Amino acid sequence: MLITFLSDFGTKDEWVSSCKGIIKSIAEQSEIIDITHDIESFNVVVGAMILSRASSNYKPCVHLAIVDPGVGTRRDPIAIETETGHIFVGPDNGLLTLAAENFGIKNVVKITNEKVFNKPVSTTFHARDIFAPAAAYLSLGKPLSYLGEVRDKNTIKTLAISFASFKQKVLEAQVIEVDKFGSLRLNIQKEEFQRYIKPAQSVHLKSKYFETSAPYVEAFGDIKAGEIGLIIDSSDLATIFVNRANASTKLGLKTGSKITVAF
Amino acid sequence: MLITFLSDFGTKDEWVSSCKGIIKSIAEQSEIIDITHDIESFNVVVGAMILSRASSNYKPCVHLAIVDPGVGTRRDPIAIETETGHIFVGPDNGLLTLAAENFGIKNVVKITNEKVFNKPVSTTFHARDIFAPAAAYLSLGKPLSYLGEVRDKNTIKTLAISFASFKQKVLEAQVIEVDKFGSLRLNIQKEEFQRYIKPAQSVHLKSKYFETSAPYVEAFGDIKAGEIGLIIDSSDLATIFVNRANASTKLGLKTGSKITVAF
Amino acid sequence: MLITFLSDFGTKDEWVSSCKGIIKSIAEQSEIIDITHDIESFNVVVGAMILSRASSNYKPCVHLAIVDPGVGTRRDPIAIETETGHIFVGPDNGLLTLAAENFGIKNVVKITNEKVFNKPVSTTFHARDIFAPAAAYLSLGKPLSYLGEVRDKNTIKTLAISFASFKQKVLEAQVIEVDKFGSLRLNIQKEEFQRYIKPAQSVHLKSKYFETSAPYVEAFGDIKAGEIGLIIDSSDLATIFVNRANASTKLGLKTGSKITVAF
Repeated sequence: MLITFLSDFGTKDEWVSSCKGIIKSIAEQSEIIDITHDIESFNVVVGAMILSRASSNYKPCVHLAIVDPGVGTRRDPIAIETETGHIFVGPDNGLLTLAAENFGIKNVVKITNEKVFNKPVSTTFHARDIFAPAAAYLSLGKPLSYLGEVRDKNTIKTLAISFASFKQKVLEAQVIEVDKFGSLRLNIQKEEFQRYIKPAQSVHLKSKYFETSAPYVEAFGDIKAGEIGLIIDSSDLATIFVNRANASTKLGLKTGSKITVAF
Repeated sequence: MLITFLSDFGTKDEWVSSCKGIIKSIAEQSEIIDITHDIESFNVVVGAMILSRASSNYKPCVHLAIVDPGVGTRRDPIAIETETGHIFVGPDNGLLTLAAENFGIKNVVKITNEKVFNKPVSTTFHARDIFAPAAAYLSLGKPLSYLGEVRDKNTIKTLAISFASFKQKVLEAQVIEVDKFGSLRLNIQKEEFQRYIKPAQSVHLKSKYFETSAPYVEAFGDIKAGEIGLIIDSSDLATIFVNRANASTKLGLKTGSKITVAF
Repeated sequence: MLITFLSDFGTKDEWVSSCKGIIKSIAEQSEIIDITHDIESFNVVVGAMILSRASSNYKPCVHLAIVDPGVGTRRDPIAIETETGHIFVGPDNGLLTLAAENFGIKNVVKITNEKVFNKPVSTTFHARDIFAPAAAYLSLGKPLSYLGEVRDKNTIKTLAISFASFKQKVLEAQVIEVDKFGSLRLNIQKEEFQRYIKPAQSVHLKSKYFETSAPYVEAFGDIKAGEIGLIIDSSDLATIFVNRANASTKLGLKTGSKITVAF
């Protein structure tokens, strides 16, 4: 069975390939597809959002995900089986929950079976020593129960991602991700945004550095190169972009920046 | 059948893996090999050159390529079949043409068959919703005609890449790519360069920042560490390099910089 | 058979995929797993250390590794077979030796069989024209002797990595790698460090920029966020880190920086 792999390990060190070596040693036939390893170091929230968006494009398979600032301390290594057959493996710090809830959480286990581990288990690299082999055994068809004891599914950690709402006609938003093109993803969900604003209407944007009006468009190319627009992209979040340019650089905004959206 | 994949998506977002998830859902057995996803955002010309150079090292297979500033606007999604059996899938903005012409263009279709699409088709992510599934069906052996209606192959977009020529003994060149080592690829094709200059001969280089003579060599190690040379590397373009160092940093030149080459 | 692939090629150019295209043309069924392509340009020592650490997590397979500042000059292309069945392919500049010695070097050949080469062989891209096809044939089960003539295994190049030792209770260390999280790997091996210092004990660190005491811990989370610690991570080297932050940025140290460790 396919294994997807997400982490904040980057690709300059050997860590990702060390995990893959362990997986391949156990499950020679299992294919591994990287989601990304460039999650900002320790940023569990962005990791959770990206895992959630990526996994929705896969048929049932195993998703190995590691953003684990608490490695080697008391936080359970877990595996979550969903109603659809997708299985998530990683630390119990909220990283997996958002994605797993999309599919409906069915069972959760704490990974405790030492026969699964790559031994001796280090205190710094559970990805290689616990999570990767667990994912490998699952990809071979081993049941969740092989990995360890059942956990109450209502006790796994969830993340509090605070999405913003319009109050009157004004919304105090925050940039929660800057994508590769420099577009600025805001903490405004599609439904909230579209409740008030229709395509081709304009909104008023105001930050510390600039004030402007910008149209809500459906395609990046609906505005001229260099112009500012708002779009609901594949993240299902309201996103500020500059056509054929980098909105983050151009507007001086980055992750965490505050911006007021009004209509 | 193998699918290669090139884009300007970067690897920090989930987009590349979302496309791969869709491909794997349709064509479980098809292997996907990344060419690169680090094409400069929206830079169709560099994407086309890299696709052209990479694809020449593959046996007939499907090449999925997306650098698509016009996503969601009027530019056709196309697939090009070549005389050699290589198939290219991507937007009709010139990205595919250079590579496809290397192999000889045989047939072109506009991708219109809705049975191919990942629905609902978004306006921001045709890579996932149109191009990736089209590539997946082709990798399963579906004929080009399955994807949609025939396009006149003489109407697909081509890029005007302006290569420079020597006038008298002088050539006004431009840096068109800076590679990972910092070497500076010029818009001078191998044939033009070698018509006038033989290995071990020196050329005179002059930019805004420096003036120097540099030997035309055949191996990077033919000059001492820290020295400047010219080489025809695997790009078949004249390339300025500094042995064991970064020419871009050392000489203060980058993509778009002008430099005079004389002999 | 699996092929792992390490280089300093980066992923923005087409080089990695060109090599993969050649491998797949010869050995369609062989899977290729990237170790990393982000080795600092020309840094054979870091390449050797990362290859050594990564390959130890794989079952016997072919390891293709290219950090090759001497490409096109006189340095042999070699393949090394080890006692365990792991095979290493790359330039004879020390890159392979550290990893191969872990498994015990059995046989070495100089790659000279022109039937193996991708022709015409360039002077700038032996990775594609010599090393990749050699790895491909090995992955198909061809014996080492198919590639070329036997080399005396005692004549292959080794790297002098100078690890530091405590003199009295003081050690003059150097940062030899900065990892993705900004942690600072020192040239102090696990055994040397643990001979004198036990977990929970503190050491005294002194650099040009700061002076502090820091505990030797076993898990990153054993100290509070923002605090400085020393750890032996999966590299088996003493490593300075800041919990949930970037030690390199915070302490102003980078590769090559000197630091005094005392107890």
